[in-house]
Amino acid sequence: MADIKATKILIIGGGFAGVYTAMELERLLKGDPSVEINLVSKENYIVFQPMLPEVISGAIGLTDVISPIRRLCPRTNLFTRPVESIDLAKKRVTAGSGFDSREYYLSYDHLVIAVGNLTSFAGESGLMEHAVPFKTLGDGLVLRNHVIHAMEEADIEQDPEIRRALLTFVIGGGGFSGVEAIAELNDFVRISAKHFRNINPKEIRTVLLHSGPLILPELPESLARYAQDLLGKRGVEVMVKTRLQGATAGYALLSNGERIPTRTLVSTVPSTANPLVNDLPVKKEKGRIVVNQFLEVPDAPGLWAAGDCAWIIDPETGEPHPPTAQHAIREARCLARNIVATIRVGSKKPFHFHALGKLGALGHQRAVAEMFGIRLGSNRFTSFVAWFLWRFIYLMKMPGLDRKVRVAVGWFLDLILGADIVQLRTERGASIRREHFEGGETIFREGDRGDRVYVIVDGEIDILRAAPGGGETLVRRLVQGETFGEIALVRDMPRTAAARSVSKVNLLSMDRETFQTLFATMPPLRRLFEELIDSRIGAVTPR
Amino acid sequence: MADIKATKILIIGGGFAGVYTAMELERLLKGDPSVEINLVSKENYIVFQPMLPEVISGAIGLTDVISPIRRLCPRTNLFTRPVESIDLAKKRVTAGSGFDSREYYLSYDHLVIAVGNLTSFAGESGLMEHAVPFKTLGDGLVLRNHVIHAMEEADIEQDPEIRRALLTFVIGGGGFSGVEAIAELNDFVRISAKHFRNINPKEIRTVLLHSGPLILPELPESLARYAQDLLGKRGVEVMVKTRLQGATAGYALLSNGERIPTRTLVSTVPSTANPLVNDLPVKKEKGRIVVNQFLEVPDAPGLWAAGDCAWIIDPETGEPHPPTAQHAIREARCLARNIVATIRVGSKKPFHFHALGKLGALGHQRAVAEMFGIRLGSNRFTSFVAWFLWRFIYLMKMPGLDRKVRVAVGWFLDLILGADIVQLRTERGASIRREHFEGGETIFREGDRGDRVYVIVDGEIDILRAAPGGGETLVRRLVQGETFGEIALVRDMPRTAAARSVSKVNLLSMDRETFQTLFATMPPLRRLFEELIDSRIGAVTPR
Repeated sequence: MADIKATKILIIGGGFAGVYTAMELERLLKGDPSVEINLVSKENYIVFQPMLPEVISGAIGLTDVISPIRRLCPRTNLFTRPVESIDLAKKRVTAGSGFDSREYYLSYDHLVIAVGNLTSFAGESGLMEHAVPFKTLGDGLVLRNHVIHAMEEADIEQDPEIRRALLTFVIGGGGFSGVEAIAELNDFVRISAKHFRNINPKEIRTVLLHSGPLILPELPESLARYAQDLLGKRGVEVMVKTRLQGATAGYALLSNGERIPTRTLVSTVPSTANPLVNDLPVKKEKGRIVVNQFLEVPDAPGLWAAGDCAWIIDPETGEPHPPTAQHAIREARCLARNIVATIRVGSKKPFHFHALGKLGALGHQRAVAEMFGIRLGSNRFTSFVAWFLWRFIYLMKMPGLDRKVRVAVGWFLDLILGADIVQLRTERGASIRREHFEGGETIFREGDRGDRVYVIVDGEIDILRAAPGGGETLVRRLVQGETFGEIALVRDMPRTAAARSVSKVNLLSMDRETFQTLFATMPPLRRLFEELIDSRIGAVTPR
Repeated sequence: MADIKATKILIIGGGFAGVYTAMELERLLKGDPSVEINLVSKENYIVFQPMLPEVISGAIGLTDVISPIRRLCPRTNLFTRPVESIDLAKKRVTAGSGFDSREYYLSYDHLVIAVGNLTSFAGESGLMEHAVPFKTLGDGLVLRNHVIHAMEEADIEQDPEIRRALLTFVIGGGGFSGVEAIAELNDFVRISAKHFRNINPKEIRTVLLHSGPLILPELPESLARYAQDLLGKRGVEVMVKTRLQGATAGYALLSNGERIPTRTLVSTVPSTANPLVNDLPVKKEKGRIVVNQFLEVPDAPGLWAAGDCAWIIDPETGEPHPPTAQHAIREARCLARNIVATIRVGSKKPFHFHALGKLGALGHQRAVAEMFGIRLGSNRFTSFVAWFLWRFIYLMKMPGLDRKVRVAVGWFLDLILGADIVQLRTERGASIRREHFEGGETIFREGDRGDRVYVIVDGEIDILRAAPGGGETLVRRLVQGETFGEIALVRDMPRTAAARSVSKVNLLSMDRETFQTLFATMPPLRRLFEELIDSRIGAVTPR
């Protein structure tokens, strides 16, 4: 059979759209050796998004919200690599490197683009540096660990202002994802507080920011109203008509000018087109690839798109289909059938689907739902029914029997054993990170421990020393490209002066260990810093 | 009661010795407000070491091998911080910083040192850079992800040599920890292989290196012999009288000069004293703090030590007690009683304990055990009994009822559902890392994708270009402190030349993103690199 050239289908993206396309192709092409199915995904698993908030509380096992792609599509060749570029002319996709620095080239006859979209914080100052996204399993884990870390610190903190900031948790975005996240987060911190000797549950503040007048705009008003009231009763401050406008390490900046001191800020709102989609020379609407009713890209034979990155007009409403998992799954199945029809010269069928319903979990045995025209969740009983439905439906929808069992067992154990507060740190902490400050903020104080060195990306910084008679003296003003904070690191002593932002400033900071390894091994850099320190120490009398 | 000054007991270290001291103190001092118990631990949980190997296979949930310290010792003040220094004169311990750069000072009346030891690779070239330790939960997770990553890469790799290295897994150290790790690892990779379309289980190679003539030297010869044979039957190559002598990114270097090409190298052997212990001005033996039979440091009232960092002579044998969990727990209880006796003017009791037995799991329902003089595991039946005992005893020993339930359920689910191959990456990957090469090795090839820049820490590097008539031309030789590989990164093009080590060389390498952010924001550095590139590009005709 070596002389038969297989038709190559290449799917890029390991979310619902990509994986369900592969699953449906496997089903339709069962045992057909003339078609090769290839899938490129950054991770070797699919994340079951609806259950991601439960990772925060640890209600279900960390790996239970994900399913291994290899188990779902055993006949598909999986390439666990990031996609670097798409060459439509050569019909070739370049995947990034693995252990070695070698790229991988994949040619195709049919290309299915299912790369979804990305979380983006561009534009809002400080969000990229200080807000955490909530989209992938990694995000969920990072958030959980961060929340536990904040509680650990609050437990031993004496300063009431810092305690308050450590125990304030802010989520931006009142859609399904933000509401489910704040509900789980609120339950988790309030229940866990009892394990901390010095935390009074009354000190805890959880805040949900929403730009519209009422959360959950996708739902009928009565349900949204009930959800908003319920969150309020459980201790969540819902701030409507308010957006997140920026952030620093110390607070969230709101659109009404208010500042909420917090160390934990989550944004579920901004999403942006995948750069791969941006670079494609095809027609787009709002960053999504325009496809026809068969999910083909017009005038580009063999090019298909589905899921959050595809723009598909519903002919009945004239509106695009929304970017939800329900739609992605149906689009994937339709797309797979149409590819097979194209290969086997059958007739393609148009995409047609209306959402079956909408479900939103509110934590602790409550939810809201609208299904087949029925509304559930406007009182205690129906919201319990909605919660039960939520669990039942999502359990049934989870791909793979083993996951269903694991999640069901997890829920059961959680009921009888309660929440878990272990903090699972696997990261060594970023050695180099970006930081953002608004004007007039303290970056470090004189006498602080010197554990980072800073470079000014943009903005200005004042270096100040306490004056002998009280007040402070300006030692120097630093601008873009200049470095500060190196004296304490190189001389291993406390900060000899304070640093404060003059206006908005973006910084790059590096920890002690990275600084020392990097600059100790590069003589030109070492010289650079030694000269800098000599000139600065010369200007300031050393103690 | 504000005028009564509480006696402060401070425990440093969150392992078995530290946590069990706190638990026993809570039990003995129930409701006594005149004593304050403080515990400083880097993590907020205790790792149940015997079950760590099961993290590799995912047989039990990732967080089930750990227990939250706050639940075990609810009356203890927990400080989740690293300890930076101990000042015996001032009776004060300094803890590292949390969210802010502020240190934390803890004073004490009694100080219990229970910091254990650390994994160290110092001395063996390349081990620090390329071998992974196996001691903490983070290590277990990193190893699991690394193994799955290697299989993902092998599945799509065409080059048979690289495939072979990706599918070779080497563990150094034939003690309990190494044997249990290789047993779990071997089971896991062989079972998971069936989910990978292009991996033939016969391609997999698992190797255990042991310096002595027979693995498990702690056990009687008949049991060790059975264990070694069983591992062999399951496909593990046990290489005795062989030590790990070094490593590079591509292979493990053995004491007999042999090189095993591998991308996965684990070392369970080297352990070194904690720097905190090294810095203490007290008597030590082999890096451990010498204590008397009451677990007090002689001539230092109020200073105590237990666990792996304590040197306690067994008066019956004249030998020190071994550093095992069994001993740490009993030492902790004895120490807690003696502290209470000191505070309440009671009589202290000497430490006395003999190990109840030794258990070693061999994976897949087999184990070896020696308990109360009975030997189990010299044949199929007794090794099954030993395995059953292993699970039963360790389950009973796990601190906390909720963990017992979770682990038992995990084991049950694993029996019916099988192993899991999701790769849980939460790290963004180290932006700056150390690398080691032996002499004559290729660091990158001409035409490779340029994704890292290198600085030479020590050793020499040749930069080579393919000569027009075949062979290669030496472009230049670089020495300590010099940089290479920057052209491809700055110009965004493939490598213009190859790099090869002249002799043993240690490098620091930085990824593209870090390089670009760092050097784009620091004008002096940018100038440095631009000049370097100009001079080098000038010497080599650009294409």
